[in-house]
This record gives sequence, C-alpha cells and structure tokens, in this order.
Amino acid sequence: MYSFNNDYSEGAHPRILQALMETNLTQNNGYSLDSHTDHARELIRAEIKRDDAHIHMIVGGTQTNMLAISAALRPHQAVICAETGHINVHETGAIEAAGHKVLGAGTDDGKLTPAHIQRVLDHHTDEHMVQPKMVYISNSTEVGTQYTKAELEALSQFCRSHGLYLFMDGARMGAALTSRANDLTLADIARLTDLFYIGGTKNGALFGEALVILHPDLKPDFRYIIKQRGAMLAKGWLLGIQFEELFQNNLFYEMADHANEMADRLRKGIGDCGYTYRWPSTTNQLFPILPNHVMDSLAQDFLFSVQEVVDDHHTCIRLVTSWATRPEAVEAFLQKLRGLPRE
Amino acid sequence: MYSFNNDYSEGAHPRILQALMETNLTQNNGYSLDSHTDHARELIRAEIKRDDAHIHMIVGGTQTNMLAISAALRPHQAVICAETGHINVHETGAIEAAGHKVLGAGTDDGKLTPAHIQRVLDHHTDEHMVQPKMVYISNSTEVGTQYTKAELEALSQFCRSHGLYLFMDGARMGAALTSRANDLTLADIARLTDLFYIGGTKNGALFGEALVILHPDLKPDFRYIIKQRGAMLAKGWLLGIQFEELFQNNLFYEMADHANEMADRLRKGIGDCGYTYRWPSTTNQLFPILPNHVMDSLAQDFLFSVQEVVDDHHTCIRLVTSWATRPEAVEAFLQKLRGLPRE
Amino acid sequence: MYSFNNDYSEGAHPRILQALMETNLTQNNGYSLDSHTDHARELIRAEIKRDDAHIHMIVGGTQTNMLAISAALRPHQAVICAETGHINVHETGAIEAAGHKVLGAGTDDGKLTPAHIQRVLDHHTDEHMVQPKMVYISNSTEVGTQYTKAELEALSQFCRSHGLYLFMDGARMGAALTSRANDLTLADIARLTDLFYIGGTKNGALFGEALVILHPDLKPDFRYIIKQRGAMLAKGWLLGIQFEELFQNNLFYEMADHANEMADRLRKGIGDCGYTYRWPSTTNQLFPILPNHVMDSLAQDFLFSVQEVVDDHHTCIRLVTSWATRPEAVEAFLQKLRGLPRE
Amino acid sequence: MYSFNNDYSEGAHPRILQALMETNLTQNNGYSLDSHTDHARELIRAEIKRDDAHIHMIVGGTQTNMLAISAALRPHQAVICAETGHINVHETGAIEAAGHKVLGAGTDDGKLTPAHIQRVLDHHTDEHMVQPKMVYISNSTEVGTQYTKAELEALSQFCRSHGLYLFMDGARMGAALTSRANDLTLADIARLTDLFYIGGTKNGALFGEALVILHPDLKPDFRYIIKQRGAMLAKGWLLGIQFEELFQNNLFYEMADHANEMADRLRKGIGDCGYTYRWPSTTNQLFPILPNHVMDSLAQDFLFSVQEVVDDHHTCIRLVTSWATRPEAVEAFLQKLRGLPRE
Repeated sequence: MYSFNNDYSEGAHPRILQALMETNLTQNNGYSLDSHTDHARELIRAEIKRDDAHIHMIVGGTQTNMLAISAALRPHQAVICAETGHINVHETGAIEAAGHKVLGAGTDDGKLTPAHIQRVLDHHTDEHMVQPKMVYISNSTEVGTQYTKAELEALSQFCRSHGLYLFMDGARMGAALTSRANDLTLADIARLTDLFYIGGTKNGALFGEALVILHPDLKPDFRYIIKQRGAMLAKGWLLGIQFEELFQNNLFYEMADHANEMADRLRKGIGDCGYTYRWPSTTNQLFPILPNHVMDSLAQDFLFSVQEVVDDHHTCIRLVTSWATRPEAVEAFLQKLRGLPRE
Repeated sequence: MYSFNNDYSEGAHPRILQALMETNLTQNNGYSLDSHTDHARELIRAEIKRDDAHIHMIVGGTQTNMLAISAALRPHQAVICAETGHINVHETGAIEAAGHKVLGAGTDDGKLTPAHIQRVLDHHTDEHMVQPKMVYISNSTEVGTQYTKAELEALSQFCRSHGLYLFMDGARMGAALTSRANDLTLADIARLTDLFYIGGTKNGALFGEALVILHPDLKPDFRYIIKQRGAMLAKGWLLGIQFEELFQNNLFYEMADHANEMADRLRKGIGDCGYTYRWPSTTNQLFPILPNHVMDSLAQDFLFSVQEVVDDHHTCIRLVTSWATRPEAVEAFLQKLRGLPRE
Repeated sequence: MYSFNNDYSEGAHPRILQALMETNLTQNNGYSLDSHTDHARELIRAEIKRDDAHIHMIVGGTQTNMLAISAALRPHQAVICAETGHINVHETGAIEAAGHKVLGAGTDDGKLTPAHIQRVLDHHTDEHMVQPKMVYISNSTEVGTQYTKAELEALSQFCRSHGLYLFMDGARMGAALTSRANDLTLADIARLTDLFYIGGTKNGALFGEALVILHPDLKPDFRYIIKQRGAMLAKGWLLGIQFEELFQNNLFYEMADHANEMADRLRKGIGDCGYTYRWPSTTNQLFPILPNHVMDSLAQDFLFSVQEVVDDHHTCIRLVTSWATRPEAVEAFLQKLRGLPRE
Repeated sequence: MYSFNNDYSEGAHPRILQALMETNLTQNNGYSLDSHTDHARELIRAEIKRDDAHIHMIVGGTQTNMLAISAALRPHQAVICAETGHINVHETGAIEAAGHKVLGAGTDDGKLTPAHIQRVLDHHTDEHMVQPKMVYISNSTEVGTQYTKAELEALSQFCRSHGLYLFMDGARMGAALTSRANDLTLADIARLTDLFYIGGTKNGALFGEALVILHPDLKPDFRYIIKQRGAMLAKGWLLGIQFEELFQNNLFYEMADHANEMADRLRKGIGDCGYTYRWPSTTNQLFPILPNHVMDSLAQDFLFSVQEVVDDHHTCIRLVTSWATRPEAVEAFLQKLRGLPRE
C-alpha cells in the first residue's frame, strides 16, 4: 500500500537527519537563541534580499498561522481569506480561539483577488461588525493553485492602499516556487507581503516553518507571543539546523522540484486516460474526478483522500506528491489506472 | 423627522417608568438577588409552565447571546446559525472573541431547517474542524420572518437527536408571538428549546432580556459567567421591576401587538402602492424595495435604514415599528408614499 | 433593617429620574450617538479641561475595567495592581478571561507606589514572563483610602518614564474627590493618567460609568471594543441623560459630599466608642474592628458585610454610606453601638 | 565553556536518534494516528497499570500545561498552584491567554499542601470571584524538591473530596522518580492524580511530553483541543518513536538516574566546601548560595543561571544536570570551586 495521502508521510531528507546526528551532543542555547538558528536566518535573509526581516522558526503550520494572526490583530479585527482557506476550515477554529473572526470569501480556485476583498470591505462599515485588518492567502493554495506575480502585485497594492496586512501561508511554498507555472521568487514575496512563511514540514523537514516578518508594526515582542501560545521549542536549534540544510546547496528547491515532477507525471497520465480535474492545480496536489469504481480499485493499492462527492457515480479525490515520492510508485499508479475500464 | 429606524428609539412604557419611580428609594439587595427579580422570575416561570427553569435578566441582547453561547460550549465547539444571524453579522465578533467559531448557513428567509444543519454536520467530521454543538435561531428573525410550531418541532427533534443545544434569540420575541402568523406560545418554546430569551429592550423596556435556561447541563454556575463578562448589573432590581411590569397585566403582549398592528398598516399600504418586499416579513420589520427617487423623497421626512442595494435604481430599505409607533406617523408615511410617482 | 451594605442599594437621585421621565417619549439615536450623550461629554470635557478626551459611557464598573484593559493591551501584556484591587479579586477573572494576567502587588493600604511597580518590573525581564504594560489603581481604593496629588504625580511620572499606561478606576471617584483628605481635581487626574472613569452607579445614578481616554494610542476603535464585549447599550441616551444631570448644577459632588458627611459621622462615633479601624479610610467605606458580640447585636438591625476575621473574638466589618444614606439611620446605628458593652 | 544551564542543552540520547534514522523513509499516518505512537501508548499504559488511560504526546511542556488546563476548565474556573509554579511565572501568561486565572499560593519549598489549598477555597466563596477547580503541582518542582507518597496521597484525597482536579506537571518526572528521596511510582501517580505528564524534553528526547488522562470527564474530544491550540504535530510518529525508546529497555529511568547521580556529586561537593542551599533540592536542579566573587570565577568556565540575589555579596545560582552531563565536567566544576577562597 503506497500513500499519496499527503506530503508529510515520511521523516526528513537524509541530509537533514545527518546534520541533526552530527551536532547531537554539542551544547546549545535553548529557545532559538543558538548559532544554527542565527545562521539559518542569515541564509533566508540573503535569499529574500531583506536584511531587516525578523525570522522565527516555528514547529507547525496551524501554530504559525495562529501566532502570526493573533500577534497582528487587535481584539475587534478580523482576517479575510478564501472560503477554502486552511484557517477557515482545517484548524479547528484556532483563529477564533484566539478571539478573531475569519471572513471567508467564496472563490472558484482558492485564490483571492482585490474584488473579493472589496466586497468584504463594502459590507463591514461600522463598529457593529468586525473590522477587516488582514488578508490571508496560501501559496500554493489548498486546491493546488498558485499566485502569479501580477496577481500578487495587485493584491499587495490593494492591501497597502486599504491598510490591510497581507499574510502568505507558505506551508507549500516550495511546491509553488518550483512549479512550471511560477514566476515569483522569495524576494518578490518578501517585497509584496507583510509577513509570510516558508514551509519545512511539507517539504522534507521533520517539522518547521520559517516565519518572515517584514512590516515593522508586526515585529515587536513576537517572541512573547510564541512563548505564550506554547510554541517556543526548548531545543530550538533543531529548527535552525533543518533550515540551514534547506537553504544550503539548494535542498529546499530540489525537494520541491521533485514533488512537482512527480505531480506532473501523474497529472499527464491521469489526463491521458481522459479524466478531468476539479481545480486547475499546477503544484503537488491533484484533484482528479474519478468514477467510483475506478476510485475503489485504486484504493486497493494506494492511499489517498476523498475531497468531495461530485455525483452519485463520481468522486473528486486528492493525490499528493512530495520530496519522497518514488517514481516507481507513480508509474504503478498510472499503470493500474490505465488498466481500469472508464465505464 | 419621524423615525422608523428601529424599535428602540424611545424610552420605556410609562407603566414601567412609573414602577421604577415608586420603588426608587427603597433599599434592595444588589446583583439580581432582590425580591422584584424573584417575582419577575415567578411570573415568567408561570407563563412558560416550567418551574425548573433558571432565569437570568441581562441588560442587552449581544451580551445575552455572548453569555449563553460561551457558557454552553467547550473551547473547540461551534454554533450554527443562519448566515444573516445577528451573532454572525452584527455583534462585532463577540462570539469569536469568546473563542468560538460561528458557522453561518445560507438561507432564503433567515430561518434554519434540519437540512441546513445536516449539511454543516456532514462537513464537520473530525478534530481538524470545529465541532458543531449549538444551533442559534432568532424569532422573529433578522429579516422579519418567524418560526411556525411545526418548524420549531422539527428543529427541536433534530437537535435533540444530534446532541445539539437549541438556543432561540428572542430579542424580538414579542413581535413574533403577537404576529398574525404565529402559532407558538412561550410554553411551546420552553418545551422545544434548551435556552431562549425574552426581549425587553425592543419591546418597551428601558433595557433587559430575560434568559431562560431549560437544559440541566446549562444551568450550573451561570452567575459566574454573567459576572465574568461584566454583565451583572449592580442595581439588578431595575431589571426585575421592568419584567414584573411586562408580565403583569399583559403589557408585554399589548405592546408587541401594537407594533405588529402598525407594521400591518404599513405593509398593506406599501403593497397597495404596488411595491414588493425583499423578504416575506410577518412581524414588525418590513423590507420594501423602492425606486431610489421614492426612497430619497421619503427620507426627507422619515428616518429608516438602507438594507441593501438591489440594482442601480432600486434599494431595499428597512422600516421598523414598535410599541411607541404613533398611528399618525404611519398614516403620514403612507400618504407621502401614495403621492410619489412610481416612475 | 437598614442597610449599610453598599452604596448602590437605592435607585437614583430624584433629579435623574425626573430627567429620564421628561425625555421618555422623545425619539433618540441609539448606541450613544445621541445629543444627550454629546452634551454630557461636553460637560465632562469642560470639567476635566481636556477638549481632546474621548469619552464613552458604560453601564457597569467591571465592564469598564474589562473594556479599558483589553483594548489597551496586546496578548502578552499584563496589568499591575494592588493585591486588593477590584480586578484582581472581585471580577471573577474578567481580565484573565480577556487573556491578560493581573499582577497583584501586596500593599498596606490598597495604594500602589513606584516602589511596588519597580519590584514587578525587576521580576519581569524577558519573553518567558508576561510584559507589564499598564498600572491599575482605584481612587478611592477598595479599602477606602485615596491618592494625594503628590502620590499621583509620582506614580504618573514613573509610569510615563517606564512606558506603562496609568489607568484609574473611579467607581468611587466622587467619594475620593469630596473627601476632607482630597487635594485632587478631575482636571489633575486627566493630566496625570492615561485613562480613568467617573463612577455613576455608586454615586446616585441608576447605572453608568464615564470612561475618559486621554492617551492617543488608546483612542482608536474603542466603540468596536464596546460592542464586541456586549457593552453597547441600545438606548445609550439613558447614560447620557444621567451624566448630564450629574455634571449640571454640581449634583455629582453634592451627592458624594453627603456620603462622606455620613461616613464622617460614623467614623467619629465608632472611634469615640473606642474601636479601631483595619485601614485608615478617608472616604465612604469604613472598616471598623468589632468584638463579635457587638457585631452580632448590630446585625439585628443593620445590614453590612464581613470584611475579614481578625481573631477568634474580633471581626472587621465594612460599612458603606451613600448619597441616599439617611442621617437618622446613622444616628440610630451609633446610638445602638453606644449602648453595647465592649466586653 | 561547559553548560549547567539546563537539562535540554543537547539533542537526544543516541538510541533515540538511531530509531528515528531507521524508520525515516517508512510512510506513516500523520497526526499521531500511527503504529509507533500506539505502541508507545501501550508501553506507558503497562507502566502505569491503567488500561483506561488516554495518552497524548505533545511537543512541549508549556503547551501541554495550556492544553490540559484549558480543556478541563469552564470559563470562570481557575487553577491553584504554588507561587513558584511554572504556569504562574514562566509561561508568559499562557493560562490567562486561554482565559483562566492562576491562583498562586506562597510556599516554602515549591510544594502545595491541603492547607494551602484550603486557604484559597476559604477565600473564593461566590460568583464575584473565580471558582477554583484544578490543582497544579510539579514533580519534581521548580525548586528541585519532590512529593513523597504520603504527601501526594493527602493532596489527592483532599482534591477528590473537594471536587478539584489534580494535575501533575511531570516535565522533570524522571528526575523525581529516580531521586534517592523518591517513594512514588508512575502507577502511584496514575492512581492519585486526574492527569499528569511524563517529560521527554528534559530527559533525553529531542522533544515530547506524554500527557496521561485518567479522569473520565477530561477525556472527551481532547484531540480537538490539541489541534485548535496548534499542538498537533503533522509527523506525530516522531513523538511515538521517541517514547517507544524511552519506555523500552528502561532508557527513561537510566537517563534520569544519571542526571541525579551527577547532581548528587555536585551537591555533596558544593556542600563539602561549606556552601548552603536556598531550597532542599533532592533532584537534578541545585540552588547553592555563593559569594559573588566565587560565582564570577565559576562563570568564566561554566554556564549557569542566576536564580535570585540574596544580599549585596551573595547570589543563589541554579545548576542543572542531565542525562548528557559529563562526569569530567562535574569534577572540573568542583575542582575549580575547591580552589576558590570563600572570603
């Protein structure tokens, strides 16, 4: 049984584990006040071309979203996101638990535009309603799509002219940046957003997200917020060492590129069989619509998740590839698919 | 300039003020531990035919919603309501500020059905999403509609069989119960819900909502919650005296009946002029769709609010009547309307 | 049975009720956007000599503390107060429910000094501990003492030089300002604090506290906070009318002066009987230490509360006078006391 | 420079790292729904002799405290702890951020007794104050002391008869259980508390605390709480594998025993030099009081933290040993100390 269930089913890239082994018995300062973390910060600052960035390494993605949003907003302020946004659906109300309403906007493809945001602003006009203050986007999105530079420029300009913070969830940043459809760099993203993060968990680290804070109003006292929410790792250098490896020798991009390459093969193979997709994903998550009998046959050999029921006879499933996806497994999946009758 | 802006533009019914005057210099225990409040509770318990009910008198409606919901839910639990629900739109995120997600369901008429709730339950299946635990409805609703006994029976049965608390916001309970379309009594509501409240603010009191708790799990320690949220009135007997007056000699129903009578005249008069309504209100809020030039002319003499823009030439406005609405003002409004050309 | 239990056992001064009667059927804008509230704000701004002050009228004291503190602090910030402070003891954890730690400092007399605050600052040095950001004081305090101008100047200077907001709870501001020991004016207080409030509930209003915000950082969006915490009164003009009466024709000071006069008589009379006091109150709360048999005899005719057990034979009780305290009741109390044997 | 600064300055015991290496490329279910975690739970259930225990593995200690306490309490409820308790001092108000007051009781040695708790209960009598509902203790405590079986029996009985949950923070459980002063087993602790955790971070794991829930009221829906607070590790098997190693072949106890052995050597050596201790620690944290010049000389070669200033010439420092402490470093420390003049 091979799993295409997600991009965090294996441990870490061997080079990352190796680095953890080599430094294991060296004493370090705790709480991310160590030299590895400092070095990782320098590597990332160089990559994004922003010496002024504050960078915090956090264990998980939901945690990072919760920290970033609750540190930025006053009690009456809200965050706008796509209705499909991770913070709106799959974080068990973590943002609300921190006191803030999430305003979900319906989209076709998981991506927000200035028009979506304008509609929310038009509706929130006085103190009887929450005050929108932040825009949350994901790149790549929860449905595998991604922002172009032009789209992000437009969003950024809109947010800046309306006093809204722009926050990019980059849990799958690697997949976005190495997709064939991408025209953004991390430096672009640092220029166009107020804060964003670079995901390690879903791109070959044991765990870890590097939160990059650009907007000066969002920098003060962030370590207090980390500690208060229980997110300050005692042995913080474990995060630092992993991000050192990711941003030395191109490992971050290499691993994401592999995930995309595997996804491309699946995408083409499934399309060649005549199946269509629920969303036009360009990254490492695919959402094919399959006849139920096809889905059931595949499920005998492969793990994947059901995204939504399409009709009585068809289901949209989710397939995810990663740095660790084996080419033979992709081939086996396609071979099995090709052998199944469509009707 | 006469206001149809809302049902809380005047003070209180003179009999209520008179009662406050007469008792003004008598010493009372504070914090709702006084004999007037006890008496008011008895009157309400008799009305709803439930000796076991716990009753708390609270100053305002948003406050009562916040108390009732935050006392009932554990941190990961959420409340379902119509997308138009007051808690979802017009309480500045009070429920989220208490830590809970509000799950809004789209409806045509502001009313929830078991089907709406079932769809939310179908979507919330594991610990990555909030756990729906309460259903919030308003009667009358935010768009002037109301629940029939059959509808409430169905909701109640559904909620009980799915382990959901059913909470009715009765800020405009009086208007619902005295509407020509009503077939519910307070005793029915007490039988069919787990908690609900009876609105005083919008029905002739200076302020005050009587929260009635039926479900035994929701009763313990509620006074702690009231105090913690800043909602315990020092001179609590001011609430008790007002509810004594409301539930002696039928005043609560008389006032609401007047509001509905005034609304009925407006409804018929506006309809007779050929205008239609955005929602089929049966209570004291009306939502006519008017040509903008008609609206503008009316606005020279009358206060009302804009509900939503319908198209470039038409707007849906909101007209609200109350216990204090003067028949002459209704007549003046209709007379002016009749004199305005439709095109 | 006459009550010295607190200063909120009666309704309101007759002039206040009269004003509510006279305006009862006039239509007003809701939510404190009415002309009475505007006028009351002007009267208070004149009294405190600060045209730039933002003034919000709130129903109750715990509510006002909760609003003021939660609007001012970021999530990791804490408020320092005397261990006896109302927010630390008698608000059911309202401040903690809004997410903030209350740091109580032990004091002899319920008053904070720069030395108390410095000790807290010395202890809170990094992000593993909360960050003190506000100092909360009460005037008069929970034990009946009050700040002199010199003491408040010292506190103010200390807070400003350490980046701490200074917030004065004035639930019993009237009693402080009209005490024989007072040398402060409201204008002094406006000059020396960042925000404070003027209590109506405990000085002859039905309810109401006027929160005065001076510090520019604390002004933005405060009405959102009021609404979100359920504290926006629909018929807000009820607050405005009461504060108009309080600050026209000196009523606020007259009533507090009467309370102090009644307290002075009690203080002298109890002292003349040879009893001592737990705290050196100069305002309308007295804390005599009485033999238990004396306390028990008094309790047959008078209501008061037990403050604390002193030893097996003595108890500290609390007596409170108010604008409504009847001189004959004071005399009756003292007469009864004089007739009781001390042993 | 050798560090005695804490017990989490190195990575993990080599056997733990080895286990992570060996399983690195095997696919696992995420979110702690994997076979390693199941196995680790079985090992712990066997160790504590409680088949009914719910066990959750969490990354960090502050996080675990926050989860356990916020899942157990209703909004108005509070937790009692020693004034020195970690939740009261060193978690940046995490418990308050979740809405709950922490009631700190002064103690001599960091340990709570029924008498301490009774005093808090005597003071919290009605709804104007928070309601104590949980007792938090640490074993070993923040000052290196530990509970005897008799003490824990007494606490447990008191809590059960007063309706209080008893929660033991076991971040340093290993040090407590392997101390020469210990007479408790994990099975005793499971019998006497309602929930507790077993610390991995401070005893040779990369990270991880195993929370054991015994009381049936505290079990439902705990995974929702974990997810909502951002504490659900995507690659949860990393926790499972570590606890498998800790509870196979006695590794958990062996490592803690080593830490205690190193502490015993330091304790005796420092005492032999004539120095005294601030608290009578029996575990791996020592709090000697040293002349400042001695402290300064030691600080040239060793890292440790200052606990508190004793007087102008003396300081209490904290020395911590761990599973990784090298005997030669202990000897070097003592040798240096012996060479320093006491005056």
